[in-house]
Amino acid sequence: MYRSHTCGELRASHINNEVTLSGWVQKSRDKGFIVWVDLRDRYGITQLVFDEERTPKDMMDKAQKLGREFVIQITGTVIERASKNPNLPTGDIEILVSKMDILNESLLPPFTIEDKTDGGEDIRMKYRYLDIRRNPVKNSLIFRHKVAQEVRNYLSKEGFIEVETPYLIKSTPEGARDFVVPSRMNEGQFYALPQSPQTFKQLLMVGGIDKYFQIVKCFRDEDLRADRQPEFTQIDCEMAFVEQEDILNAFEGLTRHLLKAVNGVEIAEFPRMLYDDAMRLYGNDKPDIRFGMKFGELNDVAQHKDFGVFNDAELVVGIAVPGGNSYTRKEIDKLIDWVKRPQVGALGMIYSRCNDDGTYKSSVDKFYDQDDLAKWAEKTGAKAGDLVCVLSGPTNKVRAQLSALRMELAEQLGLRKPDEFAPLWVLDFPLLEWDEDTERFHAMHHPFTSPKPGQLELLATNPADVKANAYDLVLNGNEIGGGSIRIHDKKTQALMFEYLGFTEEEAKAQFGFLMDAFQYGAPPHGGLAFGLDRLVAILHGKETIRDFIAFPKNNSGRDVMIDAPAPLDDKQLEELSLKLNLKS
Amino acid sequence: MYRSHTCGELRASHINNEVTLSGWVQKSRDKGFIVWVDLRDRYGITQLVFDEERTPKDMMDKAQKLGREFVIQITGTVIERASKNPNLPTGDIEILVSKMDILNESLLPPFTIEDKTDGGEDIRMKYRYLDIRRNPVKNSLIFRHKVAQEVRNYLSKEGFIEVETPYLIKSTPEGARDFVVPSRMNEGQFYALPQSPQTFKQLLMVGGIDKYFQIVKCFRDEDLRADRQPEFTQIDCEMAFVEQEDILNAFEGLTRHLLKAVNGVEIAEFPRMLYDDAMRLYGNDKPDIRFGMKFGELNDVAQHKDFGVFNDAELVVGIAVPGGNSYTRKEIDKLIDWVKRPQVGALGMIYSRCNDDGTYKSSVDKFYDQDDLAKWAEKTGAKAGDLVCVLSGPTNKVRAQLSALRMELAEQLGLRKPDEFAPLWVLDFPLLEWDEDTERFHAMHHPFTSPKPGQLELLATNPADVKANAYDLVLNGNEIGGGSIRIHDKKTQALMFEYLGFTEEEAKAQFGFLMDAFQYGAPPHGGLAFGLDRLVAILHGKETIRDFIAFPKNNSGRDVMIDAPAPLDDKQLEELSLKLNLKS
Repeated sequence: MYRSHTCGELRASHINNEVTLSGWVQKSRDKGFIVWVDLRDRYGITQLVFDEERTPKDMMDKAQKLGREFVIQITGTVIERASKNPNLPTGDIEILVSKMDILNESLLPPFTIEDKTDGGEDIRMKYRYLDIRRNPVKNSLIFRHKVAQEVRNYLSKEGFIEVETPYLIKSTPEGARDFVVPSRMNEGQFYALPQSPQTFKQLLMVGGIDKYFQIVKCFRDEDLRADRQPEFTQIDCEMAFVEQEDILNAFEGLTRHLLKAVNGVEIAEFPRMLYDDAMRLYGNDKPDIRFGMKFGELNDVAQHKDFGVFNDAELVVGIAVPGGNSYTRKEIDKLIDWVKRPQVGALGMIYSRCNDDGTYKSSVDKFYDQDDLAKWAEKTGAKAGDLVCVLSGPTNKVRAQLSALRMELAEQLGLRKPDEFAPLWVLDFPLLEWDEDTERFHAMHHPFTSPKPGQLELLATNPADVKANAYDLVLNGNEIGGGSIRIHDKKTQALMFEYLGFTEEEAKAQFGFLMDAFQYGAPPHGGLAFGLDRLVAILHGKETIRDFIAFPKNNSGRDVMIDAPAPLDDKQLEELSLKLNLKS
Repeated sequence: MYRSHTCGELRASHINNEVTLSGWVQKSRDKGFIVWVDLRDRYGITQLVFDEERTPKDMMDKAQKLGREFVIQITGTVIERASKNPNLPTGDIEILVSKMDILNESLLPPFTIEDKTDGGEDIRMKYRYLDIRRNPVKNSLIFRHKVAQEVRNYLSKEGFIEVETPYLIKSTPEGARDFVVPSRMNEGQFYALPQSPQTFKQLLMVGGIDKYFQIVKCFRDEDLRADRQPEFTQIDCEMAFVEQEDILNAFEGLTRHLLKAVNGVEIAEFPRMLYDDAMRLYGNDKPDIRFGMKFGELNDVAQHKDFGVFNDAELVVGIAVPGGNSYTRKEIDKLIDWVKRPQVGALGMIYSRCNDDGTYKSSVDKFYDQDDLAKWAEKTGAKAGDLVCVLSGPTNKVRAQLSALRMELAEQLGLRKPDEFAPLWVLDFPLLEWDEDTERFHAMHHPFTSPKPGQLELLATNPADVKANAYDLVLNGNEIGGGSIRIHDKKTQALMFEYLGFTEEEAKAQFGFLMDAFQYGAPPHGGLAFGLDRLVAILHGKETIRDFIAFPKNNSGRDVMIDAPAPLDDKQLEELSLKLNLKS
C-alpha cells in the first residue's frame, strides 16, 4: 500500500496518527539542522519535516538530497505545525518522517511546476505531462470531467440514450475537408473520420431512438487558426417527434442545469433573439448580452447632409461607449487606429462626445448640428458622459467592424465578466450563405436543415431570403451550440440537394442511404450539437480551449510531445496500396 | 407538440383523458366496420381504434389505408378496452381516435419489424435503421447505455477522472496493425488511430492524474474474424501509487457494482487463480467456472502401460462429463468426431464409462484394468453415472483441445447459464509469448508491462519462464478485461525494449517521449482495460457483440448501409500527396 492518506487530506484532527503518503517533492527548504519538504499529489500539499534531533542521520542526509519532482513515499507521525499556514488546507499540521523511500528520481524539470510557471507555451506542450502536474491545467481537466459527467447524468435522467456512432465512415465533399483512412482490406478505398455524427444520429431517429446524445470526437482537416484543433469534442443530440420549441426547452434545461451544478449560478432570463435582430443590434450572430452597447442605425439622421462618407454608405451605425466622454483625444485616436487595423478594416471612425451639460462635440461638427447629434445619442442610447462611435460602409462589413469595436471596448471597460453568464438563443438563421470562393450558395448549417414552413419555394427565386428552422445557443458572446429541425422526407431532401448544386447521381452516391431511410417512415426530428471544448472553457471563465484538452495539437496539427504525425514505413504504405506523391 | 404521452405510458387511470400520441404503425386489423391499429414508439405499443359508429367516414377511410411503418400523429380519448391484453402494459385501454395526421408514409419494409424478424443478417445490416426499431436491437442499445452510465458514475464516485486522449496519434510497428491517417498539413506524414490510449494514460499518471478512466474507441486493422470489429470500445483505466492488489480491489468493486446495478446479481465469491493453474485445470486462460469439469492430469496413472498413444504423449488429461454414462455409443462417436474436426484437431478420444455399480467400461479395456480406471475417475472427479473423456498429445495443444471439448459439452448440457455470473481474476501471466511466425518472443500484454519482482534478470536466460505483474478479468469464460502494473523507470523500460528486439534507435523513435517522461518523476502505476462491447454482451447473457453496436461493420470491414469505405476523389488524393499503388 503506497499511501494511507492523500496529500490534501490531513488536518489537526489527525495529530498523533501514523500515516503513509506518496507524492512529488514540490520544494524543500534546508536549514541544515532542519529540512522541510512540500509533498504534492493530485489532492494537495502536505509539509514533511526532518530535523537533527528526531531524524536519524542517514535519513537526514537523504532528505537533504531530495530534488524537485522526486517521487517519494514516507511514513511518519502527524504533528502540530509551529507556524501554521492558513492558506493551505493542511496548513495546521506537518509530518515528522520516520521512514522514506525514493520511488523515482527526477531530472530538473524544464520549467517550474507552479501555478505561475516560467515555461513558455512550446516547452510546456513538449512536456505536457509535466504541465498537467500544474494546478491550472490539472484543475481544467478535472473541471472538464465534471461538466461531461453533469451533461451525461442530466440527459440520461431526461430519457436520452447515449449511442456510439462509428468513426470509420464515408468521405463526402460537402462541408469541411475530411480526414481519411485508407482501407487495407478494401484496396484503393478510404474511410473518413466523422466531421460530426450528423447522418447517423438522423438514422437513429429513423430507427426510433427518440432521444439520442453522445459526447464524441469529431475531425476536420482545415487550416488551423489559433484555438482550433483538428480533433474536437461535441455533445451531439437529436430528438424525434419534436418541434423547435421542444428542443429549445430541452437544452435550455441542460444549460441551466450545467450553470447551476458546475458554477452555482441560477439563470433568471434565457432570452431568444432573431438572427436578423442580432445582426442589426449587435452586428453579430453570437452577441454578448452581458452588457448593452446596442447598435443604433443612423442612416435617416446622418445621411442627406453634406457629409459624403455617410451619404455614400449603405449603413451608418453607431454605439454608445459608457463614460467614453472621459477619453482623451489621444485615447480616441488609438480607438480609430484600432478599427483601421487590417484585422478590423474600417476606413475611419466618427465620434461624438456627449458632454455633461447636454451639448455634443463631434469630429464632424462641420456637417452636423447639436440637434443632429442629439438624434445620434438618442438612437444609440448614449447618455451625458458617453461617447458615440460611428462607422459606415457596406452593411455586412460595417456591422462586423462595429461588432469588433464593441467587443474590444467592452473588454477594455471590464464589461465581459468571466463569472457572469448570459445565455441566448439566436433563431431563424438563413438557410443558405453565399460563398465568395465558389460563387455559389452553401448550406449555412448543413444540407439536412429544413427551411421555415412555406419558404421552400423561395429557394428558386430568392435563395438568400430563405430562413431555416435553425438555432444557435450563445453564451457570453460565444456560440456554444447550434442545430436545426431537419428535413425528414425524401422529396424535400432531394430538392435541397438540387438547390445546393448536387447532381442527382452525386446526391445518391453520397447520401442515398439517408434518402432511402426517409422512405421507410422517418419521423419529424431535430437536434443540436455543443462544442464541448469551448463550452468547458467558457464555463470556467476562459476563452481559449487548449488548457481544457489533455493533449492538444499545435497550429500545424502536430503533437510535439509524441512527435506526430510521422513518416510511415514503406511496408505499411505498400500494404495500403499507396505511394507518396510529394509536391516538394 | 407532437405528443402528450408516449405509446408505453397510458393505463386504466387515464380513461376519459384526451391524449395525443405519435409513432409508427406496427400493424392494423381491418374488420370493415372497425379498424384496430397498434401504434409503436420507443416506449411501447398502444392500441388505436376507429369504428363506423364513432369515427367520421373520411378518417375511417384513411385508417383503412394505413400501411406498416407509416408515421402518424393522433389525438383521441382513452377508453377501456373490451378484450384486455394482459401481456401489454397498455393492454387495459385503447384510444378512440378523433384526429389523425400522417406524418410520413413508408414503403413496405424489407423485413418484419418484430422481435423475431424474417430478415437475414445481410439485409438487416443494410437497413440497420429499421433493424434498430426492433425491440431486441433497441433494447441492446439502451442496455449498453445503462452499462456505460453505471461505469462512469461508479468510477467518478471513486475519484476517477475521465480524460479524453487524442485520436490522431503516432503509428508504431509494435502490436497489431494501425489504421493510419495521412496529414495534409505535414506532407508525406501520417497519424495513426489509437489501438488503445496506453501511452497517454501512462503519461497522465506521470502528470499526476492519479485515477484515470475513459470510455474510448480503439482501432485495429486486423483481418476480421467473426465477431471482431475494426473499431471497438474500451473502458480504459489507470491508477498511480498502486500495487496489483489495489487495482484488483478497485475493479472487483466496479464489476460487483455493474452486476448489482445492471443485473440485480450479488456476487458472493470473486476468486483469483494463477495463470499456470488456469491452464492446468481448464486448459485455458479464461476459464468458465460456472461449472466444474476440471481437468485431471493422468500421466502417472495412464502412462507406462502398454498403450503407446498415451506413453508417447507429453500430456494425458481427462475430464468427467456429469451424467455422461447415459450417452449411447453413437453419441460418444459424435463427440469423438467433434474433437477430430480440424477446428479442434485431436487425433482421437479415449473414454471410460463410470457405471452405477462402481465398475468401469473404457474404450481401452485392453490396456487398463478396473483399478487403473478408478484412478482416472478419481483424478477427474468422476462419479458413478459420469463419463471420463481423455485426450493426449503435446501439452499446449491437448489442453486447448480438451478445453474446447469441455466448453462444447457444457453448452450441450446447459451448464453455461446466461443469467448466472462467475467472475474470476487470472493472475501472473507470462511476460512473453513465443510467436511462431516471426520466431521471436513478443510481449504477451504489451512492452510496458512490468515483470514480477526479481525476474527481470531471467529474461536473458529463461525468457519463457518470466512472469508478469499482469492480470485478466474473466467473466463466464470470456476475457472482459486485462491489465498490468507498468514499468515506471527508464532503465527497465529500455532493457525491456532491448529484450523485445528493438534497437536503441527504434525504441527512441517510437517511445522516446515515454522514456523521457519516466525521467521526470514517474510514479509507480498500473491499470487495465475492459472491452465494453463484449462486457455488455455478456452482462446481457449473449456472446456475440454485433447487436450491441449501433452501426457495426461486416467481416470485410465494410459498413454496408452507408457503403463505406469508398474510393476518393483524385483531388483529395492529390491534396494528401498520395497516389494509389494498386496490386491488382
